[in-house]
Amino acid sequence: MLALRLDPTPRLDAAAPEPQPGAGEALIGLRVAGVCDTDLQLARGYMGFRGIPGHEFVGEVLACEDAEWIGRRVVGDINAGCGECADCRERDGHHCARRSVLGIVERAGCLAQRFWLPARKLGEGPREVSGGRAVFAEPLAAGLHVLDEVRAADAREVAVLGDGKLGLLTAMALGGAGVEVTAIGHHEAKLELARAAGVGGVLERELEPGRTFDLVVEATGNAAGLERALGLLRPRGTLVLKTTVAEPLSLDLSPLVIHELRLVGSRCGDVARAMEALARGEVDPRGLVTARYLLTDAVQAFEHAAQRAALKVLVDGGTG
Amino acid sequence: MLALRLDPTPRLDAAAPEPQPGAGEALIGLRVAGVCDTDLQLARGYMGFRGIPGHEFVGEVLACEDAEWIGRRVVGDINAGCGECADCRERDGHHCARRSVLGIVERAGCLAQRFWLPARKLGEGPREVSGGRAVFAEPLAAGLHVLDEVRAADAREVAVLGDGKLGLLTAMALGGAGVEVTAIGHHEAKLELARAAGVGGVLERELEPGRTFDLVVEATGNAAGLERALGLLRPRGTLVLKTTVAEPLSLDLSPLVIHELRLVGSRCGDVARAMEALARGEVDPRGLVTARYLLTDAVQAFEHAAQRAALKVLVDGGTG
Repeated sequence: MLALRLDPTPRLDAAAPEPQPGAGEALIGLRVAGVCDTDLQLARGYMGFRGIPGHEFVGEVLACEDAEWIGRRVVGDINAGCGECADCRERDGHHCARRSVLGIVERAGCLAQRFWLPARKLGEGPREVSGGRAVFAEPLAAGLHVLDEVRAADAREVAVLGDGKLGLLTAMALGGAGVEVTAIGHHEAKLELARAAGVGGVLERELEPGRTFDLVVEATGNAAGLERALGLLRPRGTLVLKTTVAEPLSLDLSPLVIHELRLVGSRCGDVARAMEALARGEVDPRGLVTARYLLTDAVQAFEHAAQRAALKVLVDGGTG
Repeated sequence: MLALRLDPTPRLDAAAPEPQPGAGEALIGLRVAGVCDTDLQLARGYMGFRGIPGHEFVGEVLACEDAEWIGRRVVGDINAGCGECADCRERDGHHCARRSVLGIVERAGCLAQRFWLPARKLGEGPREVSGGRAVFAEPLAAGLHVLDEVRAADAREVAVLGDGKLGLLTAMALGGAGVEVTAIGHHEAKLELARAAGVGGVLERELEPGRTFDLVVEATGNAAGLERALGLLRPRGTLVLKTTVAEPLSLDLSPLVIHELRLVGSRCGDVARAMEALARGEVDPRGLVTARYLLTDAVQAFEHAAQRAALKVLVDGGTG
């Protein structure tokens, strides 16, 4: 079948091996996939990744032991845990030590004609959510995951630092949930998208000196963002860290103790919750789509997604 | 009056200026003070400190507008906020932007015959708690402050990394509150004190490989402790950071995001809660006292406290 491969440079592979779903797994045909910054980092060698990337998808179930699933349009939780450990039994398996992660860890990704996931990791979501919106379910879930921290910290004023696709989507997710949130970035055109979604948007250089927040989401995608984000926090404030970067960062920890700050790493969220937010119209991410390519042009899609001005680039898989 | 001065090297000053308490402040005669690692760091130049250090005390009120206080034996909250801002009104003023901190920020400390604090920052505590125990109220409050994080994180297995005086006291505080806690350090004799208090104590080199905890308190006093403490955390685990060190630290942040760890800075706590724990006998810190000096020998007390084998060194002030 046709798939995108990273070695780590992206190339198209017209003879990629067909997926061989195991027990309880569903074979999924790709309708549409999204390119994420993590994918771009994998293409630069992050985590030593080799293989088929892609973890944001809407697909159609082509085969499954549980025949109920066949023909359904699905989104999915990309963390495929063992299903047996405490983390899988009691929580979501996102931290199962034996998990595979679609297109990231030990599992071929969705930037292919076909891929597979455990059926228990699939969600259908309402039909009225179009594919062009449903493909945002995975990154939106990650954005909404921050909401738990906002509530735990009783944060009234929230900022998202970074106006890339994850930053904007997170700001829109929090705004849609009724949080007073300000997107902070370097790109007027991107911040305008936040404002169009009813969220505050401020250029970093125009931020009022000394302006601080109860909670800041660090979504800049670069290590230097952490120090800047810490500087935006009030005492007892919370920093939610979304950026994963390979390089180590030099950090003075004394302010963390003196101001009793909290630094919270945040990864994946609940895809079902994201589908509900999309269905209720609380978040409409379609304005974030910069371009849409066919799977045959997935290499160009990656090149486009890596451009500074780009936001979300989608890839159509040919199914559905 | 007689006082210890840091310039930043410790020296005795027999002609230190008498305190001039302002409105609402109490003049306090020193009964007994404790030497803390922060004091030792100030003596090494931390924060550019110059003046009289000391913030762990039991004293006797010598003068106060509110005559009710006079003659009482007191402990105190060392953070003297403005009393008017939101942090002072709604919380404890520990993060008031205009606060002074006894013997640390803009306020002469308690390693003197006399010092002063706002009367509203004083606490009396039960008489049955001897001075040799009550002098631990301030550091014990800092240790008990971790309890809020343990409960917020629903942490079942807790470790304290570092068997210095703050680490041991924190382990004893958590153990006294019913938390399953393990003290981890490098000194068998110090860990034995934790065991005597009913708390687990394990030499770091004898820790079972791969052993992890829900919550780890970093109390090693050195920057390298952070990386080691992070390595002891389970996914979604919480690291409570107690160490303040001047030097910046190089840190790889990706594990924070991937394992969704929390890093929480923690400073001072509620002195009244600490006095209650002492009164109920939940914590008996007397085993942590290495030596006791007179104020006239405070320089030697500092030298003794800086020795590797030393735990808490007390200084008697001559009042009471």
